[in-house]
Amino acid sequence: MWHDTYLRTVLQPDYAYALAHLLPHLFDALTAHALMLEAQQVPHAGEAAALLRTLRRRPFPPHDPQVEDVFFALDRRLAGENGQAAGALRTALSRNDLDMALYRLSAREELLEAARHLLRLRRTLLDLAAREVNAVIVAYTHHQPAQPTTLAHYLGALENVLSRDTGRMFGALAHVNLSPLGAVALAGTSFPIDRELTARLLAFDRPVENTYDAVSTSDWQVELAGVVTVAATTLSRAVHDLLLWASRGLLTLEDGLVQGSSVMPQKRNPVALEHARTRFSRAIGMTQTIVFSAHNVPFGDINDPGTDMQPPLHQMWQEFREGLELLTAALTNPQVNRAAWRREAGAGEAALTELADVLARQGGGGFREAHATAKALLARLQAAGRTLGSATPEDLAALGVTLPAGDLAAALDPAAFIARRTTYGGPAPTVMGKALTAARERLEQDTRRHGAVTGRFAAARTFLAGEE
Amino acid sequence: MWHDTYLRTVLQPDYAYALAHLLPHLFDALTAHALMLEAQQVPHAGEAAALLRTLRRRPFPPHDPQVEDVFFALDRRLAGENGQAAGALRTALSRNDLDMALYRLSAREELLEAARHLLRLRRTLLDLAAREVNAVIVAYTHHQPAQPTTLAHYLGALENVLSRDTGRMFGALAHVNLSPLGAVALAGTSFPIDRELTARLLAFDRPVENTYDAVSTSDWQVELAGVVTVAATTLSRAVHDLLLWASRGLLTLEDGLVQGSSVMPQKRNPVALEHARTRFSRAIGMTQTIVFSAHNVPFGDINDPGTDMQPPLHQMWQEFREGLELLTAALTNPQVNRAAWRREAGAGEAALTELADVLARQGGGGFREAHATAKALLARLQAAGRTLGSATPEDLAALGVTLPAGDLAAALDPAAFIARRTTYGGPAPTVMGKALTAARERLEQDTRRHGAVTGRFAAARTFLAGEE
Amino acid sequence: MWHDTYLRTVLQPDYAYALAHLLPHLFDALTAHALMLEAQQVPHAGEAAALLRTLRRRPFPPHDPQVEDVFFALDRRLAGENGQAAGALRTALSRNDLDMALYRLSAREELLEAARHLLRLRRTLLDLAAREVNAVIVAYTHHQPAQPTTLAHYLGALENVLSRDTGRMFGALAHVNLSPLGAVALAGTSFPIDRELTARLLAFDRPVENTYDAVSTSDWQVELAGVVTVAATTLSRAVHDLLLWASRGLLTLEDGLVQGSSVMPQKRNPVALEHARTRFSRAIGMTQTIVFSAHNVPFGDINDPGTDMQPPLHQMWQEFREGLELLTAALTNPQVNRAAWRREAGAGEAALTELADVLARQGGGGFREAHATAKALLARLQAAGRTLGSATPEDLAALGVTLPAGDLAAALDPAAFIARRTTYGGPAPTVMGKALTAARERLEQDTRRHGAVTGRFAAARTFLAGEE
Amino acid sequence: MWHDTYLRTVLQPDYAYALAHLLPHLFDALTAHALMLEAQQVPHAGEAAALLRTLRRRPFPPHDPQVEDVFFALDRRLAGENGQAAGALRTALSRNDLDMALYRLSAREELLEAARHLLRLRRTLLDLAAREVNAVIVAYTHHQPAQPTTLAHYLGALENVLSRDTGRMFGALAHVNLSPLGAVALAGTSFPIDRELTARLLAFDRPVENTYDAVSTSDWQVELAGVVTVAATTLSRAVHDLLLWASRGLLTLEDGLVQGSSVMPQKRNPVALEHARTRFSRAIGMTQTIVFSAHNVPFGDINDPGTDMQPPLHQMWQEFREGLELLTAALTNPQVNRAAWRREAGAGEAALTELADVLARQGGGGFREAHATAKALLARLQAAGRTLGSATPEDLAALGVTLPAGDLAAALDPAAFIARRTTYGGPAPTVMGKALTAARERLEQDTRRHGAVTGRFAAARTFLAGEE
Repeated sequence: MWHDTYLRTVLQPDYAYALAHLLPHLFDALTAHALMLEAQQVPHAGEAAALLRTLRRRPFPPHDPQVEDVFFALDRRLAGENGQAAGALRTALSRNDLDMALYRLSAREELLEAARHLLRLRRTLLDLAAREVNAVIVAYTHHQPAQPTTLAHYLGALENVLSRDTGRMFGALAHVNLSPLGAVALAGTSFPIDRELTARLLAFDRPVENTYDAVSTSDWQVELAGVVTVAATTLSRAVHDLLLWASRGLLTLEDGLVQGSSVMPQKRNPVALEHARTRFSRAIGMTQTIVFSAHNVPFGDINDPGTDMQPPLHQMWQEFREGLELLTAALTNPQVNRAAWRREAGAGEAALTELADVLARQGGGGFREAHATAKALLARLQAAGRTLGSATPEDLAALGVTLPAGDLAAALDPAAFIARRTTYGGPAPTVMGKALTAARERLEQDTRRHGAVTGRFAAARTFLAGEE
Repeated sequence: MWHDTYLRTVLQPDYAYALAHLLPHLFDALTAHALMLEAQQVPHAGEAAALLRTLRRRPFPPHDPQVEDVFFALDRRLAGENGQAAGALRTALSRNDLDMALYRLSAREELLEAARHLLRLRRTLLDLAAREVNAVIVAYTHHQPAQPTTLAHYLGALENVLSRDTGRMFGALAHVNLSPLGAVALAGTSFPIDRELTARLLAFDRPVENTYDAVSTSDWQVELAGVVTVAATTLSRAVHDLLLWASRGLLTLEDGLVQGSSVMPQKRNPVALEHARTRFSRAIGMTQTIVFSAHNVPFGDINDPGTDMQPPLHQMWQEFREGLELLTAALTNPQVNRAAWRREAGAGEAALTELADVLARQGGGGFREAHATAKALLARLQAAGRTLGSATPEDLAALGVTLPAGDLAAALDPAAFIARRTTYGGPAPTVMGKALTAARERLEQDTRRHGAVTGRFAAARTFLAGEE
Repeated sequence: MWHDTYLRTVLQPDYAYALAHLLPHLFDALTAHALMLEAQQVPHAGEAAALLRTLRRRPFPPHDPQVEDVFFALDRRLAGENGQAAGALRTALSRNDLDMALYRLSAREELLEAARHLLRLRRTLLDLAAREVNAVIVAYTHHQPAQPTTLAHYLGALENVLSRDTGRMFGALAHVNLSPLGAVALAGTSFPIDRELTARLLAFDRPVENTYDAVSTSDWQVELAGVVTVAATTLSRAVHDLLLWASRGLLTLEDGLVQGSSVMPQKRNPVALEHARTRFSRAIGMTQTIVFSAHNVPFGDINDPGTDMQPPLHQMWQEFREGLELLTAALTNPQVNRAAWRREAGAGEAALTELADVLARQGGGGFREAHATAKALLARLQAAGRTLGSATPEDLAALGVTLPAGDLAAALDPAAFIARRTTYGGPAPTVMGKALTAARERLEQDTRRHGAVTGRFAAARTFLAGEE
Repeated sequence: MWHDTYLRTVLQPDYAYALAHLLPHLFDALTAHALMLEAQQVPHAGEAAALLRTLRRRPFPPHDPQVEDVFFALDRRLAGENGQAAGALRTALSRNDLDMALYRLSAREELLEAARHLLRLRRTLLDLAAREVNAVIVAYTHHQPAQPTTLAHYLGALENVLSRDTGRMFGALAHVNLSPLGAVALAGTSFPIDRELTARLLAFDRPVENTYDAVSTSDWQVELAGVVTVAATTLSRAVHDLLLWASRGLLTLEDGLVQGSSVMPQKRNPVALEHARTRFSRAIGMTQTIVFSAHNVPFGDINDPGTDMQPPLHQMWQEFREGLELLTAALTNPQVNRAAWRREAGAGEAALTELADVLARQGGGGFREAHATAKALLARLQAAGRTLGSATPEDLAALGVTLPAGDLAAALDPAAFIARRTTYGGPAPTVMGKALTAARERLEQDTRRHGAVTGRFAAARTFLAGEE
């Protein structure tokens, strides 16, 4: 009946995908539909619901080339048990609205699972930051040493971005968690159905308002692609910093995340970070399959944003999750080589900004002039083959500036540099501690919210499966 | 001093871009910074604020190859007028935090401008929908006639998606509208500054909490790219439907949006729609310049998500806006060929679902059996070379089903099909009317919200420019 | 030993991928390396080659969490059988050059497999074109009827583009089919090896010249992504035309490629075409995983363009192949509704260009004036509610032009329109026939070339496996 | 006449783009067409050619809202001077085939210009490589020190990839440089024209064979996008290496390519490299505008791959060229800090592979055992807090291996490591010298080929403009 090619490239893989990822959602959605029909007095609908609760406990039929998809496989099964119930269940139901419901139920599950991993990474970052509030690092800009700060400051920044990503995920969930059921093919039905009830039973927030919108649009899926793109891009940036630190011996991953070489005996490669990076790159790449699949396709062509968009969406989430897991593993217990970092901070010129600040505060020319003086000092030292650390009050005097030796030394000390940066959001440990507390509270809030939503979805499942 | 290539490919175009798009934001940000410094008792800072208010009214200096960028051009100008004020202004200020502030100020402006065009398109859609609540169309799925519905139902669906896009825009604004000022290079400063005050003066919602985050991260820009991708993809799909309708003569654009041919005298091409489509394709393409620019770049490399991301962001918005404008123009006063659409609806088989619904309601076998009967009826008619419209009660009787002639005719009438689809979200004019009213209210709310935000930003500008 | 996360997200899936896709290449590459070492008089290398030929016939060990990858699994196996042979084999060998060799051997196989499917589609197109040399169709531009042409003309155009894609594939093969072996980690080795010999044994065209290049660069993989993007984009465009034809009932797929509806009894959806489109969209999306994986990564970070790029590359090829297969299936025996097409051509205005041409040839004002006259004629007829087919010499006379009735009728006849288009590359059956013959010859040449390369690779495999 | 929005967003920018980038091509194409018509005895065609040669020397009319585009502006101008010539010129001509001709003529020019810059970069790389054949560097893999090699070896690798990119460019040129002229709207014409002659006059290689193909397909443009993607991705990788070197102080750009900081007095940022990277990222992003514009668009919708694809194509080339220029500037005269590099090579463990090689050559266990011994040696030293450089024969003896002190020292000397790597393609200066000579010859060949093609196109222009 089906063309061999169609069977092999479309029907079989779709069936396999549905078996692996969609069956519980299929039973949930059909059971909710049946219960709604029963409430609307459709004869035999209650029997359909009961039968679905029974069948979901039995093995699902394997692929049969005569049967198009899991929907018809189940339909046949239902009809074999109770023809009237099977007939009733088809009332006001189309694969169009049903499939979209499965995809949304599946999407919200994947979204929450990814969010859970993101929350874990945020927790890992805050734990490490709390440990490293005093760990001096040299922050680079433009691949050049810029200023001293702390590892906690960097990690706190990263956690802050990721808390926004968590927010974006919850925002996207609000567009995902809507019920298309009752839209039927696209125009609704002439049967008196109750879309609100079906939505409520499935723990959807509410029905998609317009039935055409319900079966045709793809914005909620492209939005998921966008949300992943934002977070994955940010994380790709963080991985580069971590690799740069690993490259300079400032950060060492634990042994189980490090790979040797088949030819270079000395090698200890921080490959977990590399693989995290490839996962983020691949996740971003996968988002493009979503966008291309929806691009320039009429609203009525619902395979593109429907069946055929699910495997790439799933894979996008998997890549993203794996990246999060690898990065979490890498940051759970890394060795931070504080001594090396202090050496780097002490040897270089990163603290020079503070000298300019000090000069600005005491001089009358403002920061503009102070900046020029600091620059001139450095030039003078370099011309003499000297380092910044060797600067003396005499060097400054030669530039017309008076600064006691103690003040000069303090101005060039990385730890002092940091301690003075008490600006809101800055690295001074006093300030940073408060920031970490606030971040921790935000994280707990997000975690509670995540738990509440997860619980609500699980409760709906429990009820629909008749397990309570 | 500068290398020719660097001057030609970087400094000159950056200066030109800043002149065209960033100057008011530069003055706003510096004035806010100066007023904050003044409030913190920094000597001469008040003079700097006053001077900035004067200079913003004078022509800005043209590009001078000796001067790196607009910041230093203005710095030099300020120093020429009042060295102490210029010096004071540089206190606790870096191009890092300043530039990011300009980019955010510019982004919120472009975002609101795009949102304004989106609101206009939504209004246009609702106006046309209100006009076409009774206009029967044939909705296609899989490029085949599926079911009758109304033009209002389709347009309402599209407006509903776009209302979600408006929501996504406001959501993104919350991540854009944060103040990086006070982060200075990245670690804040040892001067006692008030980041909250600067933020408030610029009508930012609040400071970016972590100063490293403030100058380094790019999530808010990639989020804008995601928001545009979602809306542009949806709109690319809508354009395809409109082109298909134009292709079948069901929709005709007004003359000023139609192009003839240099060789085919009969041609009237709906090119405004095609150009809208290319704008959306190009907008989506531009989002990839944003993603690639931020991808795999250390947090400290702030040219990629900074200066060099602004022109593509600007161009992304422009493409997107132009697409919205062209589509709005096309849908403001199109000719809807209702007669042709009714013919298409009447001649075809799109209403057959309703016959199955009717059979399901009266028979005992449920929709499953009724669907099979309707399919058998069609096969029977086609075998005899007859159309669905010619079906009689006798044809149904031959399939073992009894249906009075009047009921059969009603079941196959497209207008009746629609009138019966009173499902929540369906096309029945009674239901659709309410949906349009609700949509209109949502639109008014969004419009008011847009106006309020726009007004708040304008007021900040007025104050900073000293115009009140 | 390995971190759980690393094991689960990296090592296990990599092992599974290698088992499924890389083993024969692993044995080929190692055997070639061993034979080369033997020729260079490395002791025990010949034993290693013999042992490899034996082991490749035995089941490969399943994943063992203690063993990093298939290379070390085989290494251990070899060492278990013959420690000296195993030791010899490791001479002048690194996973860096070995892996890149496997990826290239795998890539050339996937490339040729895709090319084979492309050749099949080209043959299908030419077969259908040969059948439809006289089938009049109306070509649309800008979604509006433009001119009559033939189905053969359209199909011939598509085949011509795809012949260029075949060329691009052979072009890419020249960059793929180079041997990295002997590059070892990246700097070659101090052992006297013969990279030419290894390359020859593996049927590589020659060694990658620079050993750093050999293990680090990713251009050949990104080029494959580019080649697929070009072809998939073209094919996405063709699918849209086919769907438009199916939508108007001009083309009908065979039953095994068509899907019904669970709710709309009349539906016969040409879903094979839709799924072909999604495959091309997904293939293009997959190319972005390739580009992102290579983007902004140092040359030495060889996981990104190495191990982690293989699954997406494989998937890109699979999506692309499936699209080709579905399209080939759809075009192998479609029903072409010639009568409907002729009706469309006859009823419309698509032939009007020819009337302008005729007027241009007989008048003195050139085509410019003739175009204006034809346009005026159409306006005159439309104003009177008449169709172009009803035009008479009198209508033309009213515009100041004289044309005998026979000439007018001939000028407006779609078949005559086509017969007169004998321009090189045009649709006139005489011209088209020659073009199809030339296309067929080009196809045969490409097919022979494809066969020769395939045979050469197979012969290398046979020899290395010791099967001859 | 035209809708304001259409005028502002489409017609005006298109006119401006054509004025800036397409005019010479417009005159070339029309003149060639006129000369062909003259050769085919079309009356007044010769006058049209002469008139075009005159008009191209005069200022082109500015945009007039009444006139659709530059074609009609010129048409009107021609008609004003000589109506019969203007009429003749329109024979067998459509904007469809004409526009595609302009886009191809423009594309080949941009392609050659980019290729010229690529050739310059290759020359720069070879010059620097020749200077640095003996400069020891430490090559990193996985962000960890891997092996010593030379700067020349790295640069030679990069040049080799870019020589393949040059090949891809010439390959793409073969698909660009085909004449669509004579395809007219899409079906050719009933006039007896000579497409070969037009093609020859324009220095096209030959006509696009099928006229439908000629006006509709977009493969050659998407191929250009692919070619740029490949090269830009490679170059993005190289920039990362250069930035890493700059970060460790191993490479310093000349002053004119370095930027200071407004707040950190010590800063000397290698921003030319960063900006090169953003150009490559943006170029890759721009390629996606090409792909999206062509994706899922019927063949007849020729605005998407036509007019509206030209600005993004142009911008893609500009970004790419600027990246090449910035990178060429950065590598023309950088300061290579050889001493620092030697220190890094001497201090580390990168040469350890050679010790394993030496042990493998003298022992009986092959490289497998030798690798284990070298690894054990390192572990032993590290456990004792010693560096690899301090290893003695006694350390080896403790592991059961005998090696004279001189051999041990030689095995660990980076320069010796390199000198021994005489593998084909390796870094040993003797081998590298030959490789650079070969590379230089290949570059000269490519340069001559580039010159020949450029000259051929210029000669066609000279003739068509009547300048000879």
